[in-house]
Amino acid sequence: MKDLVELSKLIRYYILKSTTWAGSGHPTTCLSSVELMVSLLFGGFFYFDADNPDNPNNDRLIFSKGHAAPLLYSLWTVVGKVTEEELLTLRKFGSPLEGHPVRAFPYSEAATGSLGQGLSIGVGMAINGKYIERLPYRVFVLLGDSEMAEGSVWEAIQLAAYYRLNNLIGIVDVNRLGQRGETMYGWDLSAYEKRISSFGWKTICIDGHNFEEIFKAYEEALKSEMPSMIIAKTVKGKGVSFLEDKEGRHGVALTEEEFNQALKELGEIKKITVSVKKPESLNFCSQSLEIKEFKKKYSIGEMVATRRAYGEALVKIFPEFSNIVVLDAEVSNSTYAEIFKKYYPERFFECFVAEQNMVGMAVGLALRGKIPFVSTFAAFLTRAFDHIRMAQYSDANIKFVGSHAGVSIGQDGPSQMGLEDIAMMRSILKSVVLYPSDAVSTEKLVREAAKYKGIVYIRTTRSATPVIYDYDEEFPIGGAKVLRVSDRDLFTVIGAGITLHEALKAYEELKSRGIYIRVIDLYSVKPLNTEILKKALTETKAIITVEDHYPAGGIGEAVKSEVGSERVFSLACSKIPKSGKPEELLDYEEISAKAIVATVNKLMNFSSF
Amino acid sequence: MKDLVELSKLIRYYILKSTTWAGSGHPTTCLSSVELMVSLLFGGFFYFDADNPDNPNNDRLIFSKGHAAPLLYSLWTVVGKVTEEELLTLRKFGSPLEGHPVRAFPYSEAATGSLGQGLSIGVGMAINGKYIERLPYRVFVLLGDSEMAEGSVWEAIQLAAYYRLNNLIGIVDVNRLGQRGETMYGWDLSAYEKRISSFGWKTICIDGHNFEEIFKAYEEALKSEMPSMIIAKTVKGKGVSFLEDKEGRHGVALTEEEFNQALKELGEIKKITVSVKKPESLNFCSQSLEIKEFKKKYSIGEMVATRRAYGEALVKIFPEFSNIVVLDAEVSNSTYAEIFKKYYPERFFECFVAEQNMVGMAVGLALRGKIPFVSTFAAFLTRAFDHIRMAQYSDANIKFVGSHAGVSIGQDGPSQMGLEDIAMMRSILKSVVLYPSDAVSTEKLVREAAKYKGIVYIRTTRSATPVIYDYDEEFPIGGAKVLRVSDRDLFTVIGAGITLHEALKAYEELKSRGIYIRVIDLYSVKPLNTEILKKALTETKAIITVEDHYPAGGIGEAVKSEVGSERVFSLACSKIPKSGKPEELLDYEEISAKAIVATVNKLMNFSSF
Repeated sequence: MKDLVELSKLIRYYILKSTTWAGSGHPTTCLSSVELMVSLLFGGFFYFDADNPDNPNNDRLIFSKGHAAPLLYSLWTVVGKVTEEELLTLRKFGSPLEGHPVRAFPYSEAATGSLGQGLSIGVGMAINGKYIERLPYRVFVLLGDSEMAEGSVWEAIQLAAYYRLNNLIGIVDVNRLGQRGETMYGWDLSAYEKRISSFGWKTICIDGHNFEEIFKAYEEALKSEMPSMIIAKTVKGKGVSFLEDKEGRHGVALTEEEFNQALKELGEIKKITVSVKKPESLNFCSQSLEIKEFKKKYSIGEMVATRRAYGEALVKIFPEFSNIVVLDAEVSNSTYAEIFKKYYPERFFECFVAEQNMVGMAVGLALRGKIPFVSTFAAFLTRAFDHIRMAQYSDANIKFVGSHAGVSIGQDGPSQMGLEDIAMMRSILKSVVLYPSDAVSTEKLVREAAKYKGIVYIRTTRSATPVIYDYDEEFPIGGAKVLRVSDRDLFTVIGAGITLHEALKAYEELKSRGIYIRVIDLYSVKPLNTEILKKALTETKAIITVEDHYPAGGIGEAVKSEVGSERVFSLACSKIPKSGKPEELLDYEEISAKAIVATVNKLMNFSSF
Repeated sequence: MKDLVELSKLIRYYILKSTTWAGSGHPTTCLSSVELMVSLLFGGFFYFDADNPDNPNNDRLIFSKGHAAPLLYSLWTVVGKVTEEELLTLRKFGSPLEGHPVRAFPYSEAATGSLGQGLSIGVGMAINGKYIERLPYRVFVLLGDSEMAEGSVWEAIQLAAYYRLNNLIGIVDVNRLGQRGETMYGWDLSAYEKRISSFGWKTICIDGHNFEEIFKAYEEALKSEMPSMIIAKTVKGKGVSFLEDKEGRHGVALTEEEFNQALKELGEIKKITVSVKKPESLNFCSQSLEIKEFKKKYSIGEMVATRRAYGEALVKIFPEFSNIVVLDAEVSNSTYAEIFKKYYPERFFECFVAEQNMVGMAVGLALRGKIPFVSTFAAFLTRAFDHIRMAQYSDANIKFVGSHAGVSIGQDGPSQMGLEDIAMMRSILKSVVLYPSDAVSTEKLVREAAKYKGIVYIRTTRSATPVIYDYDEEFPIGGAKVLRVSDRDLFTVIGAGITLHEALKAYEELKSRGIYIRVIDLYSVKPLNTEILKKALTETKAIITVEDHYPAGGIGEAVKSEVGSERVFSLACSKIPKSGKPEELLDYEEISAKAIVATVNKLMNFSSF
């Protein structure tokens, strides 16, 4: 342990030097966790193939308190995986050593920095280890005390106990101080202990700067039958007298003068190189599942809700994509994820009504090579927006599926209606947004989503809609289908999902009056097919978009932004919806066939056309 | 209590009849809570002026399990406030008796239906009663057992204990069954008790169908020094043999045949009318605060971060808007809400790192007539999107303030950058989105936000920007400022916040080369000033929008959608950002002065211009 004392000094030196050089960062937050992390990595508890961070047998370490990133980088500096020179690029443009961990640094398991997400990511990785790949790796999550206030942490605590994830070990660094002052419980370790143990976790309270206590804690945690939380009393800024337990020093780097003063206090620094224990061998015994046939085919005209087709599609494509894992937030009988569960219960994980943790888990599963399909009502995905936002910085390969989109769900009323979900999912920089209108296109798009690497959103509909496509149709991401076209088309109507069927009804009605409209199925809301849109704009007098969604950030704005024209008109939900029958609500919001026909009539009277 | 037995039968009859008539709804969920609610309202525990739901002395009852709405409506039917005829409009278009409670029904305290939000709303109302208006009213929240899995419930539990809200009483209806099957803990009341009491709440476990036990529980809860949770074991579908404790009956109405069968089981129904106890008298003793002067004025050219001007503006306008209450999620030294706290600590509530509960609390405060200003980093407001979405259905008058917007925050990296916040806040149907660029406009816009009734979002900037406006400038919602204009303007550049200053720099550089651009400050992102935008489009060759935000749902899309033209070009963040200096990042994302100048140069070479 004498070595660990020296090593801790060296780590403190690196933390202070790198943050002082950067001129910003969170040195005091790093200093409180030094002994906890030095013991873990170099005390023989952590197994990691430092030459191969992708080794599936590696233990996993997630810095949920992402602002302690300089500590993470310093740990890998003493292993020789970061040079001192590289360490001093901390927070500089282009360096993988960012202010908060991102995946560009290969020893960072996940992007963190929005507090309270790391434990959920850990739950996902632990589930993968325990239930899917059946590997002996353990998952360690370093948490700050401030972030324990986040509800998502308690969602993760709850689910980890439910799944008895004894391969998951949390370490709460209770340094008493948050960003702007004392946390809710200060140094009252028992407050954390009572709460966490009440959820069924093993809890171990220690002095987080005492190696002996820390070692015992890890030993005990690693033997537990349940997930464990080590609750460590620490001092923020530990090791530097003028930083220790001081308010107003969160997220403040040292001045050069302070740095020199701190160095004096640290005393002589020995530049040691140490190693992390390698995992013994690859012990891959992933469950092999019996593939079950599911041959159901839809026929044209058959009434099938796209949400049901979603559940069936999962079963159909699983043999091709055996890395699929399905998560649902207690509504699998509505999203129809339950169909998959019936066929492959080993790959379905009930997440209960806790959407944030579900998405965090999906990030963890994705980072272990799985393809999570994550479903709930479209409206309730908003619950996890911060987690979805963060998932993009982990380059997570996740498919989100939101059912019960729009006012067409009917009587349940606005609380259950996804009306901002397209805006939310489009706002993710590299996301793909898909919106199938029938069972066949749903099946095809679920397969496209599985094939695609990255964040995909699939929006499904509650009510049954007629099958309109043959199986020979293909639905590439970025495509659009021109369903009705003639050389007499006056206007183009763009629908997607439920509104496509309204557009088709409007087509029939207008045709009976000798008026022709082009009808486009915009199943790929992002990316858009510019070519088809521009062609429609050239060949017809105007485009009318119709969507079961609020206007801002929706399909109308997407199309208008893409083609840039005064000749695009948007029909979208522009009144607060109510309970009512689907048809009544489509009429009320003026997104029904009737509204489309009325818009066409109005436009025909415009002198400019 | 014999009356209450009869009354419960009648309530059950109304629940079954109204949902059967509606053809949908959640009768079984309602049936499990009947005795709990009948005892509360008619057992002498609940004080409510039924003729005046707005009486500030009324106790408050929030149905967090919003799908039990038919029970709520039935309770007010036996009071005579809903006629039987009206009750049968349940879930019909235009009826205030929606599938989930909305404010159109005056006895519904808040819109609910997205699970796990009611307790936070209750915390806000209880804080108002205990700390602001100092009224003796109590707040009751009926929760379902499924929703206890939501992290936001635990955030609320935690904060209620922190503020010792002994005027808050939760009732968990543990009917064992969620939507698709058993909840995580089934009928294990002790699981709830251990967890909830570990947070410092008084907990009382009872049989939720036994009047004696229920009465005792309310008596005890009302005497507690801490918030109380009554944990009641109940039977889903109670009272109807073929519904009791049956899976697959969640959210399913009875057939007519089943209804008739159920009636037989209920036996003779007596149509009784009962009353709720009125609160004794108005006991309004709202704290009167000493008004403190704050006269700081900004001068042109002074460098002030708009986030700091936000904190100062709150202090300045408080004398005019004494209903302001400020909430912050442990970052008040970054959002500068701490300035307000220093002046008016009695109106500042620390919410710790728990954004969902903070927004829920704000809904509760708003519904009690307060004007909550709710601040955190713009990025972390995404955490509460579902709560923000639901706030609109409560017609809540809330001002959201997101600091640290965009890549211009610099070194901290993408996790801390608000890059989807404009998209999120624009997507709320009736929201206002404001984005000040200097201290003076911030102050003016904070006042406009306070004046406006409804949801307003104010986006502030981390770095200091020069003051560019005089105090005689006005900043109405829906306005825009034309800052540079001449009859030689080739192009229009639209900026907001940080990018406005980049636009002004670009102006200077281009002017030195004899090229004139029009510069517009789009401080009101929603609603937009169409007139100014259209004029710019007419008078200049093109519009270039520049924003520190991802493209989808942002300023560029808003402007393009509004003016509909091929001559609008958008500069927005279109690469995943990194850590770096603000200037480096603005250049990297091509939203800096340099990028604006380059775009102008490029457009000048277009043959079509």
